[in-house]
Amino acid sequence: MAKDIGHATKTNPGRFFEDYRLGEVIEHAVPRTVSGGERALYHALYPARHALYSSDEFARTCGLPTSPVDDMITFHTVFGKSVPDISLNAVANLGYAEGRFHQPVYPGDTLQATSQVIGLKQNSNGKTGVVYVRTEGRNQHGSVVLDYVRWVMVRKRDEGAAAPDPVVPDLASVVDPATLILPEGLDFTHYDLTLAGERHRLGDYAVGEVIDHVDGVTIEEAEHMMATRLWQNTSKTHFDVTPRADRRRLIYGGHVMSMARALSFNGLANAQMIAAINGGSHANPCFAGDTLRAWSEVLATAPTAAPGVGAIRLRLVAVNEDGRAGALKDAAGKYLPHVLLDLDYWALMPV
Amino acid sequence: MAKDIGHATKTNPGRFFEDYRLGEVIEHAVPRTVSGGERALYHALYPARHALYSSDEFARTCGLPTSPVDDMITFHTVFGKSVPDISLNAVANLGYAEGRFHQPVYPGDTLQATSQVIGLKQNSNGKTGVVYVRTEGRNQHGSVVLDYVRWVMVRKRDEGAAAPDPVVPDLASVVDPATLILPEGLDFTHYDLTLAGERHRLGDYAVGEVIDHVDGVTIEEAEHMMATRLWQNTSKTHFDVTPRADRRRLIYGGHVMSMARALSFNGLANAQMIAAINGGSHANPCFAGDTLRAWSEVLATAPTAAPGVGAIRLRLVAVNEDGRAGALKDAAGKYLPHVLLDLDYWALMPV
Amino acid sequence: MAKDIGHATKTNPGRFFEDYRLGEVIEHAVPRTVSGGERALYHALYPARHALYSSDEFARTCGLPTSPVDDMITFHTVFGKSVPDISLNAVANLGYAEGRFHQPVYPGDTLQATSQVIGLKQNSNGKTGVVYVRTEGRNQHGSVVLDYVRWVMVRKRDEGAAAPDPVVPDLASVVDPATLILPEGLDFTHYDLTLAGERHRLGDYAVGEVIDHVDGVTIEEAEHMMATRLWQNTSKTHFDVTPRADRRRLIYGGHVMSMARALSFNGLANAQMIAAINGGSHANPCFAGDTLRAWSEVLATAPTAAPGVGAIRLRLVAVNEDGRAGALKDAAGKYLPHVLLDLDYWALMPV
Repeated sequence: MAKDIGHATKTNPGRFFEDYRLGEVIEHAVPRTVSGGERALYHALYPARHALYSSDEFARTCGLPTSPVDDMITFHTVFGKSVPDISLNAVANLGYAEGRFHQPVYPGDTLQATSQVIGLKQNSNGKTGVVYVRTEGRNQHGSVVLDYVRWVMVRKRDEGAAAPDPVVPDLASVVDPATLILPEGLDFTHYDLTLAGERHRLGDYAVGEVIDHVDGVTIEEAEHMMATRLWQNTSKTHFDVTPRADRRRLIYGGHVMSMARALSFNGLANAQMIAAINGGSHANPCFAGDTLRAWSEVLATAPTAAPGVGAIRLRLVAVNEDGRAGALKDAAGKYLPHVLLDLDYWALMPV
Repeated sequence: MAKDIGHATKTNPGRFFEDYRLGEVIEHAVPRTVSGGERALYHALYPARHALYSSDEFARTCGLPTSPVDDMITFHTVFGKSVPDISLNAVANLGYAEGRFHQPVYPGDTLQATSQVIGLKQNSNGKTGVVYVRTEGRNQHGSVVLDYVRWVMVRKRDEGAAAPDPVVPDLASVVDPATLILPEGLDFTHYDLTLAGERHRLGDYAVGEVIDHVDGVTIEEAEHMMATRLWQNTSKTHFDVTPRADRRRLIYGGHVMSMARALSFNGLANAQMIAAINGGSHANPCFAGDTLRAWSEVLATAPTAAPGVGAIRLRLVAVNEDGRAGALKDAAGKYLPHVLLDLDYWALMPV
Repeated sequence: MAKDIGHATKTNPGRFFEDYRLGEVIEHAVPRTVSGGERALYHALYPARHALYSSDEFARTCGLPTSPVDDMITFHTVFGKSVPDISLNAVANLGYAEGRFHQPVYPGDTLQATSQVIGLKQNSNGKTGVVYVRTEGRNQHGSVVLDYVRWVMVRKRDEGAAAPDPVVPDLASVVDPATLILPEGLDFTHYDLTLAGERHRLGDYAVGEVIDHVDGVTIEEAEHMMATRLWQNTSKTHFDVTPRADRRRLIYGGHVMSMARALSFNGLANAQMIAAINGGSHANPCFAGDTLRAWSEVLATAPTAAPGVGAIRLRLVAVNEDGRAGALKDAAGKYLPHVLLDLDYWALMPV
C-alpha cells in the first residue's frame, strides 16, 4: 500500500528563473576536502601527464611546495558545488567568462563555493531566462582559489511570474594577461624539458599555429559517471537513462574538457598550468561510445612577472571521430556537428 | 599436456554448514588500511554528499578530529573480510540485526574482523542450514569499530552429516536507541545547515513520513565490480559471467545499500552518520543496467546524550525504475518485484 | 575552414628502429608521485589481497616501515614511462628478462625511469628490427627500485636506412636466486598465517605442483583503460576503437599480469612480494568481455638471507574461459589459443 510522500517539501527542487535576485550571494553546500585519492582518480580517468601535476619533485623544481591537484579538479569541484543551486533546472549551459585561477589546490585543502547573481534576462518566449553568476571557490583559509562567470538558461516555474529588469553584465572576451595571477614562488628557470616530455618553449609556438593532438579515447559510461560524481555534480542527466527516449546519458561537459586538456599533452606538454578560462562552448553533446580527439590553436602569447614563465592563450577543441583538426565552424559561423567543445584559456609555459 | 592440479589442497573451498561449531570464533584474513584513496573512490562510485564525510572542516565543526571515511566503507570492509569464511558457499544472505557503529574510521586506520558463530539450524531439506554470526570489526588499536549479526543459508558438503542441535539466537528487532554509541566529541550545536545542504532538523521529520529521493542512477558493471573488489569481497558471483546461463553478474547487495544511502541525501542531507543497522533484506537481485532509485520512511526518532544530536530511525528502500516511493510489499506481505533493498537503520541528525 | 596543422613538429611521433643507437641512455619523461590513491585504485581494479600490501600493521610485522604499494604498481609505472620512447611504434612486445625489484615503493615516493639500448637487430624483412633495452626505475633519492630488460619489435621509418651491426644481449633465462635483493629489514619470523589468509609455507609447495586459482573475472573496458591510464601508458591501441576494423581495444598486457597475480592469491596467498621477473610472454591478446582465470606452476624454491624468508619461482598463466589449468602449449610448442599470459617470476614466502 502506497504511503504519503513528503518529497515536495524535503528534496531540492532546484531554483527556477524567478527565484534569482540580482546581487544575491548563494552559499553552496557540501564543502569538499581533496586528497591523493582525487589525484589518482583524475589520472585514471584522463590521460593526464603534465609533469607539474604528476610529480612532487618536478613541482618543487618549479618553486611550488608540492604537486598541486590538476587545475580542472579545482574547476570541477567548485562547479559541482554550484549545480544544485544554479543549474538543476537549466536548459542549457550557455557560456563561461573571466575565469581566473588564484592559487593551486593541494591535497588536504577543503573547497567551498559561493555564487553571486550578476545578471538576469528573461527570454522573449516568457518560459525561460538567462542567469549570470560569478562563482567563487575558496579554500579552508578563506582564500579564493578560482572565480569565473557562467551563464545558464533556466526554466521559469510559473510563466506568469513578472520578468526582472534585464541586466546583462559586461564581460571581458578574454582575461587580460596582465591580470593573470601567478602561484606564489612559481619559477620556471630550472624547468626540466626532458622530464616534462617535450622541448617546445613558449617561443617555439606561433600565433595561428594549429596542433593536432593525434591521440583518441573512446568514452565509457562508467568513467564519465565516476568523474562527475567525484565532483559531486548532481545533474540527473548524466546518471539516469530513463528521462530520454533513446535512454542515453548526456556526458558532463567538464568530462570533455578534462579529456581534451589531457590529450593536448601531446604537443603542449609544457602548457603546464591553467591560469585563466576566457570562454567556452559545449558545441555538441557527447555520449558514451564517442571517440574523443583534440586540437589546439595558439591565439596569443604574453609575458608574466614570474621568472621564466610565459603565458600562452589557446583554443582547445574536442571533436568526435568524424572531426578534423582545424575545422571548427561552417560558413554560417555555426559549430560543425563533430565539434564537442571549444575552450579558450591561458596556460603558463616556460619561456 | 595437462599436469597434476593441486588446487584441492591449496585453494580455499570455503566452509560448508557442517564446518561451523556453535561458539567458535573465526579470525578473518587480510587486514586492511584505508586511506584518502578509499574515500575518493567511494565518492566516485556513489553520489555521496553528506558533508561530515566530505569535508575535514565540516567534521571539525561537529567535534570530530577530521572527516572519517563513510560508515558504509567500514561496513563493507568488515563484511568483505568475512566473505571467504562465512558466505563463499552461501545460497542466500538472509538478514542483518543488531549492527552498531562503535566509532568512526579515519584514513590511516587498519581494520580486521572476526566472527563468532552464535546460531546454527539445519533446514528440513537436509541440504542446507542457516548460520548466524556476530561479526566484529576492530581497528589497529584493537578497539571495536562495528559489530553486527548476519545469518546466511549455507550448503552442506555432505548431506549425510549429522545436524547440530538447533540454536537460533534471540535478536533484537531494532537496536534500542538508548544503546547507540556516539562518536567521542560529537556535537551538533554548531552544525551549519547551509553547508550541509538542507534545512530540515530532526524535529522537521514526522514518524510515518515517506520521502522520495527523486534521483536515479543507472548501474554499470565496471562500477559495482570496482566497489566490491575495493572491499576485498571475493564472492565469485559478482565478477564472473560464466556460472549463470544468462551470463549476468549478480551485484553485491552492499553496492545497492551504498547507492541508496547516497541517493537519500536528497531529502535526508542531515541524516549524517549511521549509528546502527536494525535489519535489512536484499529483496530482489540487482543487475547492471538497472536504474536505482530510493525512498525513505521515518520510523522513529529519539534523543541522544551528545549535544545537539538526535537519532532518526529510517527505512531505506532501493527500487529499480519500475518501483514507486512508498510501495514495498504486496497484500500477502511479499516484497514487490521492483524492490531491491529494505534497510532499517538509525542515523544521527541535528535536533 | 581548415587551418595549417603543426603536429608534424610538435607531437611525439615515437622512435623508429633506425633512431636507436647501441649504448644510448634515454631519460623518460613525466616523473610520478604515487599515493594512497594509487593503492586504493589498484585494489578496486584487481582482486588483490596479499596482506603485506593491504595492511600497514601486517607490513610492520614483516619488518617494513609501512605497507608498500603493490610491486606491479612499480612495474607498470616504470613501464608506462618508457612507452613513448620505446614502444609507441612497436609491432610487438617480445619478451622480458632479468627483472629485479630492488626496494619497495611507498606512498609519497616519486618514480622516474631511464632505458639503455643494449641490443639491436634488424629483421630479415628489412621493415622492422628488434630493440633490447634495460629499463631502470629510480625513486626521488636516486635509488633504483626496479630494473628489467625488455625487447620489442619496432618499425623502420625508412626501409632504406642502413641496418646496424646486430647485437643481441646475453640474457639470463632466470634470475639467479642468490642475487635476489631483499627489502631492508624484511623478516617473516613473526609472519601471521591466519591474517595472511592461508597456511601454506614454502615447504608445503612441491616443484612441479600446479595450482588452479579457481576464480574468474570478466573484464570491462572502463577498468582496463583506467588502469592503463593510471600508469600513464600512452599506447593508443588500448584506448581508441577507431584503428581496428573490429573496433576493439587491445588490453594492456600488464592488466592481464596484475589480474592474474591478484587471482593467484587463492592458493598462493603467502607468495607475498615479487622479487624478480624471469621472463614473460603475452601469448594471445585479451579483449573486454573475456573472463580471466589463472593457474600457477611451482618451478623452483630457494633460500634467502632474510630471516624466515624463502623464494619461490612460479609460472603464472592467465587463460580465458576456454582455458584449463595446466594446459599451456600444443605439441608443436605453440601457446594454446586460450593462454593469454605466461609469466615466470620469483616471489618471497615464509619458510
